[in-house]
Amino acid sequence: MRFSPLVEQLMEAFRVLPGVGPKTAQRMAMHLLERERPGGQRLAAVIQQAIEEVGYCQRCRTLTEAEICALCESARRNDALLCVVESPADQLAIEEAGGFKGRYFVLHGHLSPLDGIGPESIGLDLLEARVAEGLVEEVVLATNPTIEGEATAHYIASQLSEYGVKLSRLAYGVPMGGELEYVDGGTLSRAFNGRLPFTSE
Amino acid sequence: MRFSPLVEQLMEAFRVLPGVGPKTAQRMAMHLLERERPGGQRLAAVIQQAIEEVGYCQRCRTLTEAEICALCESARRNDALLCVVESPADQLAIEEAGGFKGRYFVLHGHLSPLDGIGPESIGLDLLEARVAEGLVEEVVLATNPTIEGEATAHYIASQLSEYGVKLSRLAYGVPMGGELEYVDGGTLSRAFNGRLPFTSE
Repeated sequence: MRFSPLVEQLMEAFRVLPGVGPKTAQRMAMHLLERERPGGQRLAAVIQQAIEEVGYCQRCRTLTEAEICALCESARRNDALLCVVESPADQLAIEEAGGFKGRYFVLHGHLSPLDGIGPESIGLDLLEARVAEGLVEEVVLATNPTIEGEATAHYIASQLSEYGVKLSRLAYGVPMGGELEYVDGGTLSRAFNGRLPFTSE
Repeated sequence: MRFSPLVEQLMEAFRVLPGVGPKTAQRMAMHLLERERPGGQRLAAVIQQAIEEVGYCQRCRTLTEAEICALCESARRNDALLCVVESPADQLAIEEAGGFKGRYFVLHGHLSPLDGIGPESIGLDLLEARVAEGLVEEVVLATNPTIEGEATAHYIASQLSEYGVKLSRLAYGVPMGGELEYVDGGTLSRAFNGRLPFTSE
């Protein structure tokens, strides 16, 4: 015996979510059907609406149902600073860290020629047009510190070189609050090579 | 900054699922919007359809979109044995352990007078009518080995006492304070084979 076909379909459909295996999918299906039908109905409606209406901001490509996102609309941000990130989640992480008051540009991925993801797939034509406007003075390349992220940053750097903007990247080093023992070798040697004068502030 | 209102609503809606906190909800929303829109659309449609169409089997009260579930329809099960469980997940766990070839009755919970859950809320009128039909010779009270599950079993035992059916419960061997759904198959099988006469000690 299994559950009825429709209940099985529901369990199967939950598997599309990240980190959801068969047991969790079953728990989710049972929870919705046994205890949370109103919440489930709302979840279905919101998923449907979000998938239909949420697209990319025409200016920075972050996820939004508006044409231009709230951050691009804001008058309080510094137009001279543009931070390039791979995903809206990275953008949020930087915002929550606080301190950066410029604008963003979201790639939704990184260059990956083998998967057919070229410059236009990650919006680099739009990014170049943005820099060509002339307001941006510095582009912070905050792609992920991975092979693909670094390669993408290098590509963008050479693409933008003719516009005379300052290019920067996030500092590499050991994470705050971590233990050296558990930091990987690549990070450690980068942190060593980039060591700074010690100051007791 | 947060995400756009609709993306925030999507994240909030995922919180209805069991074990989903803010960080997981964000990961799910991003995953659907960035990489899995077709899967998300299917998930929304299946949730919607399941919530509308899945109800209780008219005979055993398990979850099904049919009037009578496949197990109740089956001619291969023993009508003389009826196993009473708290949830469809418990029923599935027993089926997957193998060995039991009777029928089921699903309570969808246990008696809980303080929450207004009385005998009719858990279908005990239907259960009594089923036993009154006269085919059932033994009722296995497989409620959870918790205070509430035991209390419910005692209530059912006294309710059915006048019909002269044999009453049994799962052998201890299932861990006290646990939930049937998460007990491994071997333990469940043993508990089934070692089931004992129900007594109101």
